[in-house]
Amino acid sequence: MQLTLKTKTSPYLLAPNPGGMDLSSQVTGFDHEGRETTISVVNERPLTIFLNSREIVTAMTIGDYPEYLALGFLANQGMLSGYDDVSRIDYDEECEAVVVRTKSQTTYEEKLAKKTRTSGCAVGTVFGDMLEGLENISLPPARLRTSWLYALSHQINTTPSLYLEAGAIHGTVLCQQDQPLVYMEDVGRHNAVDKVAGWMLSEGAEASDKILYTTGRLTSEMVIKTATMGIPILASRSGFTAWGVEIARKIGLTLIGRLRGQRFVCLSGEERLIRDADLATVSSEAKKHGRKGGAK
Amino acid sequence: MQLTLKTKTSPYLLAPNPGGMDLSSQVTGFDHEGRETTISVVNERPLTIFLNSREIVTAMTIGDYPEYLALGFLANQGMLSGYDDVSRIDYDEECEAVVVRTKSQTTYEEKLAKKTRTSGCAVGTVFGDMLEGLENISLPPARLRTSWLYALSHQINTTPSLYLEAGAIHGTVLCQQDQPLVYMEDVGRHNAVDKVAGWMLSEGAEASDKILYTTGRLTSEMVIKTATMGIPILASRSGFTAWGVEIARKIGLTLIGRLRGQRFVCLSGEERLIRDADLATVSSEAKKHGRKGGAK
Repeated sequence: MQLTLKTKTSPYLLAPNPGGMDLSSQVTGFDHEGRETTISVVNERPLTIFLNSREIVTAMTIGDYPEYLALGFLANQGMLSGYDDVSRIDYDEECEAVVVRTKSQTTYEEKLAKKTRTSGCAVGTVFGDMLEGLENISLPPARLRTSWLYALSHQINTTPSLYLEAGAIHGTVLCQQDQPLVYMEDVGRHNAVDKVAGWMLSEGAEASDKILYTTGRLTSEMVIKTATMGIPILASRSGFTAWGVEIARKIGLTLIGRLRGQRFVCLSGEERLIRDADLATVSSEAKKHGRKGGAK
Repeated sequence: MQLTLKTKTSPYLLAPNPGGMDLSSQVTGFDHEGRETTISVVNERPLTIFLNSREIVTAMTIGDYPEYLALGFLANQGMLSGYDDVSRIDYDEECEAVVVRTKSQTTYEEKLAKKTRTSGCAVGTVFGDMLEGLENISLPPARLRTSWLYALSHQINTTPSLYLEAGAIHGTVLCQQDQPLVYMEDVGRHNAVDKVAGWMLSEGAEASDKILYTTGRLTSEMVIKTATMGIPILASRSGFTAWGVEIARKIGLTLIGRLRGQRFVCLSGEERLIRDADLATVSSEAKKHGRKGGAK
């Protein structure tokens, strides 16, 4: 497992390592004036996730941290009863597959059987599974200082990353107070957040004092994943969907979007906010640090 | 089926109708200064797609054109032998489900059976299915004038849309020469392109003279979908992934990315380009027309 442990001067436990692995390629083409041009583009490859002997899904991923991705995906889909139940995770690079093995038999076989019996008038199985666990979720009464938000945003945007190197990629960062801790990137829609979830599970990380930052939209899936991970606060530089907001309000998740420079909008869980930042000292986002042509 | 037929002065056969349906909501929260603020956010809802009696997938969608979405999704996944085989499409709004019925039995049951037999060392079923048909694809020798590219980019960016209204959404536009024809938007990653595919199938639209424009990244999936639809040219204002480029080159698809203002990069199928635009007359993209906080 590739681990970029930083020295004490960096707050990160795990940070992007854009040059350290086969994560991007130099590709040559032609620009608008017909000149030959070489640009850096992100690699993507398929990764098939197995739960015991059953093939669950093939994700398109940049390929780092396949074990975290598999573990986090299965946990966020509600297919694992807990990390204690995981007996072994095997990654086969040649086969582009990860097998997560559990001690007890999982109930997913049962769920798949249920799927084939689903009548025409029922919400989809996968989706239904995601919603199922939400009723039992109770998020802790955390606090969020606006000074942390601004500090996090600045640090994350200036951290060397595959995004800054090649663009066209998502980022998700696990944070605590004003410190970004684990910064995952991926080309796949929800892989970055699933990798953070996998890291948290394997490290037994506490969720109640964490903040999740994402470059992606605040959709229902993103909100559900964050809540499933037990994290009470989700922030993004991108926008909202109506259902994302609705679910966040229902389960008491603090939802911050459109976080750019001084500006943000809080559409759920406003009571956790402590407005301690002096806005006069928060400069508008420097143009060079803006994520403008990011993953879309 | 909601159809926005435009008058002759507009080139669109089908254009976004941001105010016409329940596609966005007004949500009230608090801004960075603690002021109450109301913003427009995109709605999303689940749509479960059935092929005959089998539940295939639940997509998160804005909810317009469910029939096109279901049809296009199934076709792009290689689950339909052709539109001729489709006997009926039923959308049940209350159940949030679409059922696509075929005359002949589909082979998808067989494919699902194969899936459970897949050994550990095999690429994922869904993904394998997508790649399967590529060998038989032969894209036509179309031409692409750079003047069309700039005209399309300008028209699309200034078309009233849910994106301009609420942000956080993807757009895909079917174009012919310098005319955008069908502009679909969706919160779901590939729903917009699947809806275009569904429209093309039901209308029997010719693909060989078309250009597909997307706001999203040029990933392998996007390239495969475009090729499956028979469209020889794919352009985006966003970036590339390495595998997207590799597949485009293998199948001879013209791939244009990072299309903003005067600038673009062509990483595949350069031979289709005719550089007829006078760059001196193409102004750099006006700031107000840039898609900067788009769907991520």
